[in-house]
This record gives sequence, C-alpha cells and structure tokens, in this order.
Amino acid sequence: MGEGSNVGRQVCELTTPALLVDLAKVKANCSNMLANCESMGVFLRPQTKTHKTIECALLQTGGRKCGLVTSTLEEAEFFARHGFDDILYGYPLISHHMPRVTALTKQLEKFHVMVDSRLAVEILMNAPPPGKPWSVFLKVDCGNKRAGVWWEDEAGVDLTVLLQNSPNIIFAGVYVHCGNSYHACTANEVLQVQGETVERLLKFVDRVKERGVTCSTVGIGSTPTCRRPTDRMKQLTELHPGNYAFLDVQQWTLGSCDQEDIACCVATRIIGHYIHRNQMLIDCGFTGLTMQGYGKMATGYGVFRGHPNLKLCKMTQEIGFVEPLEGKLDFNLYPIGSLLYILPWHSCATAALYPVYNVVDGDTVVEEWRPTRGW
Amino acid sequence: MGEGSNVGRQVCELTTPALLVDLAKVKANCSNMLANCESMGVFLRPQTKTHKTIECALLQTGGRKCGLVTSTLEEAEFFARHGFDDILYGYPLISHHMPRVTALTKQLEKFHVMVDSRLAVEILMNAPPPGKPWSVFLKVDCGNKRAGVWWEDEAGVDLTVLLQNSPNIIFAGVYVHCGNSYHACTANEVLQVQGETVERLLKFVDRVKERGVTCSTVGIGSTPTCRRPTDRMKQLTELHPGNYAFLDVQQWTLGSCDQEDIACCVATRIIGHYIHRNQMLIDCGFTGLTMQGYGKMATGYGVFRGHPNLKLCKMTQEIGFVEPLEGKLDFNLYPIGSLLYILPWHSCATAALYPVYNVVDGDTVVEEWRPTRGW
Repeated sequence: MGEGSNVGRQVCELTTPALLVDLAKVKANCSNMLANCESMGVFLRPQTKTHKTIECALLQTGGRKCGLVTSTLEEAEFFARHGFDDILYGYPLISHHMPRVTALTKQLEKFHVMVDSRLAVEILMNAPPPGKPWSVFLKVDCGNKRAGVWWEDEAGVDLTVLLQNSPNIIFAGVYVHCGNSYHACTANEVLQVQGETVERLLKFVDRVKERGVTCSTVGIGSTPTCRRPTDRMKQLTELHPGNYAFLDVQQWTLGSCDQEDIACCVATRIIGHYIHRNQMLIDCGFTGLTMQGYGKMATGYGVFRGHPNLKLCKMTQEIGFVEPLEGKLDFNLYPIGSLLYILPWHSCATAALYPVYNVVDGDTVVEEWRPTRGW
Repeated sequence: MGEGSNVGRQVCELTTPALLVDLAKVKANCSNMLANCESMGVFLRPQTKTHKTIECALLQTGGRKCGLVTSTLEEAEFFARHGFDDILYGYPLISHHMPRVTALTKQLEKFHVMVDSRLAVEILMNAPPPGKPWSVFLKVDCGNKRAGVWWEDEAGVDLTVLLQNSPNIIFAGVYVHCGNSYHACTANEVLQVQGETVERLLKFVDRVKERGVTCSTVGIGSTPTCRRPTDRMKQLTELHPGNYAFLDVQQWTLGSCDQEDIACCVATRIIGHYIHRNQMLIDCGFTGLTMQGYGKMATGYGVFRGHPNLKLCKMTQEIGFVEPLEGKLDFNLYPIGSLLYILPWHSCATAALYPVYNVVDGDTVVEEWRPTRGW
C-alpha cells in the first residue's frame, strides 16, 4: 500500500486485491434503513462492526454522530475520539474492561455497557465517575443462543430489578441480537425469527414491568430482520443492525437484498493461466477474502460479478484458484493482468482484512476509508 | 489497542484476544532451521509471509538481513526499507507489478522476481534500470498444482533458454513450493512429497542443463518438507520454508513438530457462563483466530493449551463458543475473566489478523512486533 492516496485513481490502477465500496450503494443502504426506522417510529442505533469507519458511521447515523453500538472497546474509543456520542459497547462486560469503560463514561455524554449476568452487575457496584452513573443494557437471548439471559428465565427479570435498584446504575433497557435469522433458509423463516424475537422480548418486558421496572429502550437487531420492516417492529423503540451498510452474498441468499445492493466487492487480477488444469489463478487469497461461505455458493468462496460460470474453488494465503462451473475456460476472455470483482459471502469478515477501503463512484476512487482494528 | 506499549506488562494485563509469540520458541525454531540448512550445505532463504515482521526476519536470517522470499510486494518493500537485501518476490509476475519491481531493483543490491509464463518473460524484455538486469527465478510445479510451469512440460525448459538468452535478464534459478506436503496424512507421506519434489526438480534441471542453461539456484520450500532434513536435500542449493518460525497445530498434525514447539498462541478471556447450554463464551471470534482447520481437530477451531477437554465449536466475529468434548463443564474451573490460550490451526492465517504481536518470555511481554500488511 506504500503508494500514497488512491483518491482520483481509476480502479484499474489499484494494487490488488483491493476492497471497493460503492459510494452510491452504501449511501442508499444507509438512508433506506434510516427511512424505514423513521417510518416505523423506532430509533436506529447502527452496529459499526461491519465497516469500523468514521465515514460509514456518519452515513449510518445520517450525519448526527450519535447512537451507535460497537462490538469492541477499540471501536467505541475510535468513534468517541472522532466526536460520536451515545455509544453502546454491545458486548458482555467483564472486570478487565472497567478502566476503559470508566474513561469512556467520563468522556461521553452517553456511554452504555451491556450485561447478562449477576457477576457483571456486581462489577458495576463500584462507584462510577462523579455524576456519571453507569448506563446499562441487559442483553436478552430470544433464541440466538449466544450471549444474553434466556428470555424465559426468571433470573433475567431479577437482574432488571437489581439494575433498577442499584444506586450507581441507570437501567437503559433490553437488547437482543437475533443472529439466528442467519440460519433461515427462506424469507419466510427470517420473518418467523423476527416475529418470535419480538414476541419473546415483549413478553420478557411485560414480566419486567410487573416487577415495577421500566425498560426505556427495547431493541433488537440483525440485518435480515431489520431489512424487512413490519408493523410488529413498531412495538420496539430501537433497532441495531449493522451489515446492511455493505450487505453481501449471505444477505442476498437470505433475501435481505438484491445482488445489485451489495456495496462492497474485492477487485482482483488474473495472475496466470494453467490451461492443462482448465484453471486460472488470481491474486486474492484468504488474506483478501473470507473463507466463510464455502459450500453455500455453487461458485465457491464468492460470486464473480458478471461471470456466473466462474468458481473460486480454493484459496491459499495470496492466491485464488478459479475454474469454470462447466466446460472449458475460454482463456481469451480472461487475459493475465485483467480485473475480476468478487462479491464476498460475508462483508464483515472480508472488510476486516483490509487496512483501507477504496470508495468508488463508478471506476473512480473518490474516497479512502481507513477502519480501526484490534480490540 | 489504544493503551500504549505492552512491553513489561504481564500477559494477564493484556487486552484480549491477543497474539502471543514465545520468544525462546521462535528463536529455537529459527536457529534449528538455520543449523539444519548449514549442516546440509544449502542456503536458507526464509519465506516471511507467516509473520511479516522485521524482528522475526532477523531471527530467520541469523541477523544477516539478507536472503528472503516474500509473498507480496508490500513485504518486499517493507524489508527493503529496513535494510534487508537479496529479496525474492516469490509471486507470479504481471505487468502491473513493474513500477514497484523496477524501484526495488534499483534500490537493492539483489532483488529477484519469479515468472512461470512466456508472457511474464516478455514483460521483462523492457529495459531494466541501468546496470541492473532483472534477476529472475523460474517457478516450477512439481506436484503442488498452483503456480509454476509443470515440471514435465517442455515449455518450462524453453522458458529457461529464453531467460538465459535475454540480454536484460539474469536467470537466477528454479524455485518450487511443495505445498502439496500439506495434504499428507502421515510423516511418511511428507517424506514422499519431499522425495518426489526433489526428484522431479532435479530431472527438470537436467533437461535444462542439456539445453546449455545453468540453474545457479535450485530450491524448494515448505515447512513440512524442510523440517525433515534428509540427504537428498543436499542436492539442492536453497530452501525457502516460512511457517517453521511459528509453527501451528497443522504442522503438529503433520508431524513437523511437537506441540511444545508451537511458538504462537491466542490469549483469550472467558466472558460468560451459559450453564443451561453447558457452554461458555470467550472473547476470541473469527477476527482473532482463523476459521481454517475446523473438522481436522476434535477440538474444533483450535487447541486449548492445557485443556484437552475443551472444544471451540463455533465463532462469530468477536465471540467464541466453548463446550466440553465430554460431560458437564465444571464452570468453577473457568471463572469469567480468566485466560485461556488457543494454539491455532494455521499460524499464518491467525497472525495476519493482528496489528501487533506480544512477544513473551514466560508471562512477561518483552517485545512488541508490528507486522506489515496489505499488498
């Protein structure tokens, strides 16, 4: 990457592999989600883990620099440094996080943490910064089976009482990640997950209310469920999807979007013809594209835009192996040095591999976005 | 990572996930390979792609800062900037590389490129920098079936003649990556690949000699084959393994090393107990550990050092799911916040995820190594 800025360059001049982000598409994806949330009367608190960039978080928040959920403390600090506020560190809290959580609580007007156990609440019994009580979300598991108190379990309701009654704590509300929507096979199954999640969460909230506890915020998130606005979502106060900014082949497979909505791709060059193997090699290996998704696409590790007969059948560190799905490859169509564009199965996992994103308008790089990384 | 240097800190103070590199082990791995090559009378040209750091390349070259092979131009430029010389960019050459290849040829005393097609040789018909002919290796495929001219194919021999007769080119020799050793299931199969590779390459070199062409360098590389020095390797002039500096579970599975030789691991913290699922969560997901190797280890995505009953059965972006291989998990043994250490299946793919490596002597961080990345 040691060649200075790519802004103003044509895509054909870029070192490959390169992550391209289509500015018009990412803008449309972000403004559509904002509009959907506005029409449903719910607040959009976008998850930033897909892109981890200032520029995309600005698009996600419609420029308001307010209301994010992050998956790492590093992200929370990065956005805080760049003037964002109202940030939820959406990750199970452990005591090791507390020095940085304390600093963020001091620094921001609104910084929130997330707990799902009594132990985590006990950590917060320690005094917060003066005049800055801990703002705490309870993570609820409505079927995703990762973090969270199980929605049926009374211990979760007990925790909300403990949170409300703790002098150092403001109980901010409940938070659900319905990642189980990714296991759906059809659009209808996504809607089933959405329905089940909302129903279970609202039942949980009712039980909380019966104990005299108020949930100011009631939120769920996942791109498949949030790309399908339904009336039932109006019963919530907040949504927190993230992947929707870029989208990917996985979302397309789930019916969350059209292939044309996918805002990122990997540009790669053909580096060799191996005619005796009916194969060509490209300069994108597993450091340039996630290996996730193999077996879920007929075309291997990704989808070659505009070349439905190409399969990315193998990747080593810096090399991809490309074969035709059927027949003999017409090597004349694929000169050595020419570009191909791969739509990734998982944009979060792919974007995480790149120190810079080339943001394009057509074939011209118009911006460079530099994500934060690490933890 | 925004907390300054970790040098002097204890591992228990580190933000997790964190990549740990055991300094004594990496030193031993590097000096053993140097000693083996010396005893066989072959030059060691280490591949740097596993670590991409100055410090480890110094260990690999025994401090001589000379004789490397890199998988990207970015690496070549990085090492050149830091005073290394005699660098082979071990990647199929395409015309897009030429401006940077030209700059490196000017900058270094010895910079080499690698070709495997007539088209690539034709690129090099362009005039090199004054007094600096292109130094060119021919990549030969002896069974790996990735890049390279197929060893039996006469076109490869023809290319050596073309290279030797080109006024702008010095033909440096032949280069083979025997990555097919990774498909071996037993130590014996690794030796078979080693034997077959050497035999095929020497047959190729004989045919080249018959055409009046000299191969100054005859080299092969892959850690499984190079960790098993045999007399037949003495017929070569050069070896170029890379992974051996760190090693990993894959190498252990192939019999390249003992588990104790593996010089890197991922430190991770337990972030939650989910007793109803007989499961705990850790703060290492697919951004902290490669997903490669699943299905090849009983223990899932990695090996928990000292905890043979734990299985890393699933990873999302920032979270790993841990279950016992058998029976009920004794959660008292695994307090929330406590550390576990994961030996990765593939250290190259895992190290690539980290912006900094914590180099440890016992439990103390004694150095930080910062790899280059990008292309």
